[in-house]
Amino acid sequence: MPDDLGADLPEVTAFAWVPPFARGQVRDLRVRWALEELERPYRVRLLSGPERPKDYFTEQPWGQVPAYREGDLRLFECGAIALHIAESDQIGEDLAEDRRLLPREPAARGRAICWLFAALNSVDPQIGALNLVDLFEPDSAWAKAARLALVARLDARLGRLADWLGQRDWLEDRFSVGDLLMVATLRSIDDAELLGRYPTLAAYVARGEARPAFQRALAAQLADFVPNPT
Amino acid sequence: MPDDLGADLPEVTAFAWVPPFARGQVRDLRVRWALEELERPYRVRLLSGPERPKDYFTEQPWGQVPAYREGDLRLFECGAIALHIAESDQIGEDLAEDRRLLPREPAARGRAICWLFAALNSVDPQIGALNLVDLFEPDSAWAKAARLALVARLDARLGRLADWLGQRDWLEDRFSVGDLLMVATLRSIDDAELLGRYPTLAAYVARGEARPAFQRALAAQLADFVPNPT
Repeated sequence: MPDDLGADLPEVTAFAWVPPFARGQVRDLRVRWALEELERPYRVRLLSGPERPKDYFTEQPWGQVPAYREGDLRLFECGAIALHIAESDQIGEDLAEDRRLLPREPAARGRAICWLFAALNSVDPQIGALNLVDLFEPDSAWAKAARLALVARLDARLGRLADWLGQRDWLEDRFSVGDLLMVATLRSIDDAELLGRYPTLAAYVARGEARPAFQRALAAQLADFVPNPT
Repeated sequence: MPDDLGADLPEVTAFAWVPPFARGQVRDLRVRWALEELERPYRVRLLSGPERPKDYFTEQPWGQVPAYREGDLRLFECGAIALHIAESDQIGEDLAEDRRLLPREPAARGRAICWLFAALNSVDPQIGALNLVDLFEPDSAWAKAARLALVARLDARLGRLADWLGQRDWLEDRFSVGDLLMVATLRSIDDAELLGRYPTLAAYVARGEARPAFQRALAAQLADFVPNPT
């Protein structure tokens, strides 16, 4: 839950405005979701205007969101931040095992981290390349041909992921930070028909989105956007 | 160092044959490099033939390399494996702090992990899209136009990375698993002229490649390729 008062709370950066197609997709959502799963309060620092302040690049080398501060920690990259949040729950002794984002047992912990990286390095890049064509270069001469090749690549990967998931609810025995990132990644596929070819994956994404923590995170991101660009 | 005898050693999968352009780039190299930095012996399991055995997909959901076994651990994704290896050095009490792949101090550890994710989710996808055009679709009608757009994106990111690095040797105070993955990622840029626009980045890659552990890992990968496909 965002908290406007506590200066000691973890701080997440977010954009004050993005075009409508990007709302609910900006990557601070993933960090908010991880925090909400553990019911940890946080603060949001909104970045306004089309240009980043020059010193923001010392916080986030690409000028993107989220950047994250917590005590002495200065983190960037949604995967690193989500992993940190998931690891910090290892410290909380009173958290029920099934509420944790990383199992404590080493082999299961390792699997969750594999899926976290799989989402970000083996699925997200293929979606990103396709979305780039669809969102930013839809009218270019090469978009149509490129799209065919990129859809074929992503489709093959989704097929492998669906094979793995099978009839399970989550990628391993129970929901983890790996599922959190994989659901967040899959729901960034702009082409609904493409995900719909794999009903078990579509149901997996819907299961993730139905989690109360996801719903709180999404509502919080949407509520933070100002009506018009400044 | 690869070791053909010890059945208890960590096991890394690798391809027995790849086309010449991919030699020295297949991602088991990153895992070999991390192991060599810590002077940890390992075994290699070579995968032959163009098709993966069906049950390999239970080890590596995309059918790629590397997959990794160590005791009860079954890992995939080079980032997850490298992070595991880097974390396991926290257990070794006799390893000098400057030899570790992850600093023990939490804020510095967090930074190293940020760069690990940055390499895999913010730099690698942009290189991958470009290499895809260059390596697999060079003659397609859309490759030339796509290339212009993709080079511009990657170029902007390299500029930001060069700004961050400045005159430092490594991304933070000292070499970490974040540098290991960033160097491995940058050296996968097929277009030498592109990296050459940023002399500090080119020097950074050369510094990483000059490390004895990298040289051992590279020699080991190259030595494992069979002369002809089976």
